[in-house]
Amino acid sequence: MNHGLQTRPRLLTLEGGEGAGKSTVLAALRDALLADGQDVVCTREPGGTPLAERIRELLLAQVNEPMDDCAELLLVFAARAQHVAQVILPALDRGAWVISDRFTDSSYAYQGAARGLDPDFIAELERHAVGIVPGLTLLLDLDVARARERTRGRDLLGEAVPDRIESERDGFFERVRAGFRERAARDSGRFRVLDASQGPEQVATAALAALADYRRRLA
Amino acid sequence: MNHGLQTRPRLLTLEGGEGAGKSTVLAALRDALLADGQDVVCTREPGGTPLAERIRELLLAQVNEPMDDCAELLLVFAARAQHVAQVILPALDRGAWVISDRFTDSSYAYQGAARGLDPDFIAELERHAVGIVPGLTLLLDLDVARARERTRGRDLLGEAVPDRIESERDGFFERVRAGFRERAARDSGRFRVLDASQGPEQVATAALAALADYRRRLA
Repeated sequence: MNHGLQTRPRLLTLEGGEGAGKSTVLAALRDALLADGQDVVCTREPGGTPLAERIRELLLAQVNEPMDDCAELLLVFAARAQHVAQVILPALDRGAWVISDRFTDSSYAYQGAARGLDPDFIAELERHAVGIVPGLTLLLDLDVARARERTRGRDLLGEAVPDRIESERDGFFERVRAGFRERAARDSGRFRVLDASQGPEQVATAALAALADYRRRLA
Repeated sequence: MNHGLQTRPRLLTLEGGEGAGKSTVLAALRDALLADGQDVVCTREPGGTPLAERIRELLLAQVNEPMDDCAELLLVFAARAQHVAQVILPALDRGAWVISDRFTDSSYAYQGAARGLDPDFIAELERHAVGIVPGLTLLLDLDVARARERTRGRDLLGEAVPDRIESERDGFFERVRAGFRERAARDSGRFRVLDASQGPEQVATAALAALADYRRRLA
């Protein structure tokens, strides 16, 4: 399944839609590793370097020009190639843990399952532009209606106008969710699926248990 | 050679390094087609749409962060996918001629031959993100020393500070030139190689002769 790809045990990734609580979980994992004296780098996608953050702006901006699906996919992987080369590999190579809010699985879910782009082409991009796979991926799974409620709450707080991806319809997010769950089912050694309909503290507790279990298996 | 790609006879492309005189040739071809009552769209790469022009800015900007070679390649193809979908295909589909200053051959020369990225991966990107091949490509071939002289002249006129690509060393441009010439030799049915060391008017005359000959063969 991971032909041509190298698993990097200290790369941890969080996946799932908006409103699933990835930020809270990321902070909990980081704090647990720091408390254990580990070197930890927290990052996110798309983004994570100055250039990759500029690509993120292009991806999320609401503009008049419709974005071609393949252009979107290639922008995401351009940002990821830069992120891996500039941030993730240097950190892993010095022995740090890297926790990334989203990584390659998001491309299979958003651009593959939801937009319908060829997963074999995405795999080709993964081999050439990324080359590495996380040791552990936590999928924060949440039904679309509940995710909408939570992100609508944020919007009411004036946090942000919905971006180009957030403005997609429910059917899009159903396909994203199904895409993530299918990937998790097919690669159950790497994925842990967490029920994100619980309160944020319960989700964080489950994430910490998954990390502790993972580290025991690594040792 | 063009497995999975469709040749579009009214797509004409100009290739070659900076300083070879592509702008003069493009104007001459455009004027000849317009004088014949044809619908003509002139465009350029990277760029050609508002989004693709923003990607061009990212590609050419001189910044502190080194750009990963694969990120560069994917940015170029993201811009090209958008350009093809938004500008080139709609124009060709209504029967217009499209003349593009640079197209996919530039990626094989700059990112493939000069930066050393895998040409099979570039071909995979071409199939998925582009899907079309020009009917006629004019390669304006010029030795690197002379091209340097001409672009240095522009800089002295205060036209621009050299961008990220223009700032590469001579060895890079030697590999670009060799990459273009090799592609032209392997696909001699599509390419016409013009000696760009001549004056701009002589090059334009040769380009017009190549276009006239091409249109006779098409008819």
